[in-house]
Amino acid sequence: MKYEETTRRRNVIYKGKIVALRRDDALLPNGQACVREVVEHPGGACVLCLHEGKVVLVRQFRYAYGEELLEIPAGKLEGGEDPAAAAKRELEEETGLRAERMNLLFTLYPSPGYCDEKIYLYEAEQVTSGVRHPDRDEFLDVCELAPETAFRYMEEGVIRDAKTIVALLFLKEKLSAGH
Amino acid sequence: MKYEETTRRRNVIYKGKIVALRRDDALLPNGQACVREVVEHPGGACVLCLHEGKVVLVRQFRYAYGEELLEIPAGKLEGGEDPAAAAKRELEEETGLRAERMNLLFTLYPSPGYCDEKIYLYEAEQVTSGVRHPDRDEFLDVCELAPETAFRYMEEGVIRDAKTIVALLFLKEKLSAGH
Repeated sequence: MKYEETTRRRNVIYKGKIVALRRDDALLPNGQACVREVVEHPGGACVLCLHEGKVVLVRQFRYAYGEELLEIPAGKLEGGEDPAAAAKRELEEETGLRAERMNLLFTLYPSPGYCDEKIYLYEAEQVTSGVRHPDRDEFLDVCELAPETAFRYMEEGVIRDAKTIVALLFLKEKLSAGH
Repeated sequence: MKYEETTRRRNVIYKGKIVALRRDDALLPNGQACVREVVEHPGGACVLCLHEGKVVLVRQFRYAYGEELLEIPAGKLEGGEDPAAAAKRELEEETGLRAERMNLLFTLYPSPGYCDEKIYLYEAEQVTSGVRHPDRDEFLDVCELAPETAFRYMEEGVIRDAKTIVALLFLKEKLSAGH
């Protein structure tokens, strides 16, 4: 069966640096009025990258959680940027590594109940070393882990970021299948 | 190295039905002033559930994307609800299936750059049939897929929801390891 909700009125509550927020008047599939809150986000790109056999992660403080998290390199799309280009840029800015090619693994919808963000998850191919040049307001450490260590961190809940868990589960399956 | 950002002032922009939004004045690890946007969410629970060998999914319209999505059963925590209880409740409301036990697989942080949501992903154990009773404003169809079909949908990008992809990658590895 096909369900659809329709917009009666878009109401912008906030337009900020990273997110915007709407509180729309909409109609449910049965025609009943409802309110839908939507967090708008420009989308992001992230990279599963192996360097000398290790998984490349970055550790940074995440204000929303008040915690340091271990994540794969990632960042938001700048002004309609191509996601593969953004993935290359973020990888190089954050870790100094360059990838010749980016292979799209998944387009992830992180929280579809209220958010329109799309996260493009790539696998870096033909990786070479370069020079780090993080954004001025980015404070992070690069952390290269043996795959087995990364998998254990994921299983123990040390790694909690969803896109990173998708990347690690993908890698685990790939390594066990012996591709 | 330990990085930390500190809050100078919390500024609530919006308090709504599902999300709230803050725009805090904060200090970067180097002491420089910055602004941090935070989407607050009460957290959610979701369930990987096999029923008669099939993966239980629900198809529903997601307003933020303007698309119908296939996802594992999920919902937000109601007023400080225990996540395992929420997972059981949502599974039963949305699909009519009851699970005796819920085994926590992952605590997922869906979008740590701006959002504080935690998604508790459970595996349902000892599943039996019951009666569906969806919320009045939930319009969804239950869709039971053979694991191989679900994996193919994930690989083809038909399934895009992040928590569902984590659940399916976990299941794929579990089945291939022959647990």
